[in-house]
Amino acid sequence: MGGKMNCLYKSILIWVLLAVSGSAFAGSDPLPSWNDGASKKAVITFVKAVTSKGSPSYVEPAERIATFDNDGTLMSEQPIYFQFLFEAVKLKGLSCDLADNQSVKKAIEYLVASDPFGELLFDPDTGAPKTDEEFKAEVDSFLSNTIHPRFKRPFVDLVYQPMLELIAYLKQSGFKVYIVTATHGEFIRPWSEKAFGIPPEMVIGSSVKVKYEVKDGKGILTWGKDVNFICNGPDKPAGINYGIGKRPIAAFGNSDGDIQMIEYATTGKGLRLGLLIHHTDAAREWAYDSPSDIGQLRDGLTEAGKKGWIVVDIKKDWKVIYPFEKKTQSKKGHKAVNAYQ
Amino acid sequence: MGGKMNCLYKSILIWVLLAVSGSAFAGSDPLPSWNDGASKKAVITFVKAVTSKGSPSYVEPAERIATFDNDGTLMSEQPIYFQFLFEAVKLKGLSCDLADNQSVKKAIEYLVASDPFGELLFDPDTGAPKTDEEFKAEVDSFLSNTIHPRFKRPFVDLVYQPMLELIAYLKQSGFKVYIVTATHGEFIRPWSEKAFGIPPEMVIGSSVKVKYEVKDGKGILTWGKDVNFICNGPDKPAGINYGIGKRPIAAFGNSDGDIQMIEYATTGKGLRLGLLIHHTDAAREWAYDSPSDIGQLRDGLTEAGKKGWIVVDIKKDWKVIYPFEKKTQSKKGHKAVNAYQ
Repeated sequence: MGGKMNCLYKSILIWVLLAVSGSAFAGSDPLPSWNDGASKKAVITFVKAVTSKGSPSYVEPAERIATFDNDGTLMSEQPIYFQFLFEAVKLKGLSCDLADNQSVKKAIEYLVASDPFGELLFDPDTGAPKTDEEFKAEVDSFLSNTIHPRFKRPFVDLVYQPMLELIAYLKQSGFKVYIVTATHGEFIRPWSEKAFGIPPEMVIGSSVKVKYEVKDGKGILTWGKDVNFICNGPDKPAGINYGIGKRPIAAFGNSDGDIQMIEYATTGKGLRLGLLIHHTDAAREWAYDSPSDIGQLRDGLTEAGKKGWIVVDIKKDWKVIYPFEKKTQSKKGHKAVNAYQ
Repeated sequence: MGGKMNCLYKSILIWVLLAVSGSAFAGSDPLPSWNDGASKKAVITFVKAVTSKGSPSYVEPAERIATFDNDGTLMSEQPIYFQFLFEAVKLKGLSCDLADNQSVKKAIEYLVASDPFGELLFDPDTGAPKTDEEFKAEVDSFLSNTIHPRFKRPFVDLVYQPMLELIAYLKQSGFKVYIVTATHGEFIRPWSEKAFGIPPEMVIGSSVKVKYEVKDGKGILTWGKDVNFICNGPDKPAGINYGIGKRPIAAFGNSDGDIQMIEYATTGKGLRLGLLIHHTDAAREWAYDSPSDIGQLRDGLTEAGKKGWIVVDIKKDWKVIYPFEKKTQSKKGHKAVNAYQ
């Protein structure tokens, strides 16, 4: 087995060296906001190896499935998950100005204990469930009006420029790119296309049961009281099964809740890519791993070390964090896709 | 309201007449296996109206979602649903040669009452759950070996040539095309791409709960005992919500179990298309509607009449039923996509 693997790695290596020296790697830099280094190189090498005909690791387009966690992987999650912020802003009587660590901690404790997302799907005055269309309008309004306390910009501006480039690169390389998140899908779907270029039908998140009914001659969906699915930890692969039905060949996360998704993706046959974002840059973003109330990353780092997953060190690996920091000299086809800018 | 609608219809009509007389309708026939008539005309008129820039009913590609039922809509479902046949063949001790109406009726009664699909996900000898990969291999083997009792061909050959053309036409017109079926998704996904050009990730079906675990260092999904979701009737719109998160603009079915899906699609804003297949051709396929043990269509016909859904009369509307009947003189880009042929 070891011999066979060595042989496989050797043939991949030879092919990669040939490709690097040839024309396959010519052209523009697909990841201009990434510093040259091991992380960027590993990503590009993987994409080239699975997409270039003649490569021993070639993967047919139909099997090129990539899954991304959302909070902390595609956008900042500090001082509080974006869904939690939505809950805090919407719920009456909850003071949550996020001005200091103590109020953040208190808000998180309250929100985790009461899990009020379901409540927000009902009209607080009448108790009637909102329709999916009513709820989407509310999320849209929230997006336009909620300012991040640190950056004084709409929270949705805090997406990662390097990850926008990575999503665009994968899509241009024939990948189908999904978000697989513990956040409620209904909260992400209204803006995922605009922010990331990932359409609602490619967002797999947690969900509340919905009910179909006819009102004034129109078929509508309204919310029930029961949770349908929580898409986290070992249930991320389950969510991938319900929503996609294929094992991804690449998976991207940032916390211990993403371990099983990355493990599921990287233990299939053939060349695979697992990647964790490590938040190491307090000056430009945040620095945290464990212990942390938000996006704890402890076991994931151990697993990554053992299993060869890439660990992105934000401080070292990323030239730019957010699209608004500076306008990257984007080359054709790789410009920032966040339409909120 | 009535006046406004009349005005809208008038402007659509004027636009369609202009388009027909101009170059937009030039080119090859996208539905060569459909007889010229009201059904074909209605489908083509709808597609042109929602896809041509300048049309008052133009719909952006992102919103062009079409959902198809599977059994009886995309392929024959007589004398027994394909999943039931799979169950009958796989389950020990069940005699089901489907040779006469009585044995078919008995098999259906047994299979409906015992709902044995879940059983098939477990090894009958050890009781251990199969992995998703093991189960897919079993479905593949079934597809290669199961011969339809009437047509003496693999059952999967009994897909409808006119519907293959319709799927291809919609895809070429920028639609995202989904299967939304009461059949278990796991049973359809291994062959939907090959049969219909619809990849597994665009199949929304019934499901059994899955569990993630690590076995010999590999992350695998195995089946649980509990049903996760049954995707039928009023739960078809719910399945569409979980799997897509958008209201379709076109929906296609053949039985009363498809009413709510078509109603949901056709009661959104703007131009919509609802279509029911009516099985009227005993000589070339089957003739049935109500009462029927399989694919009952009674209320659907009433609804279609009231709401202006298209009812396809197979005998009148389809030149060819199956791809194997005769090789249609297919024009560029519209050939049969069923790779099983």
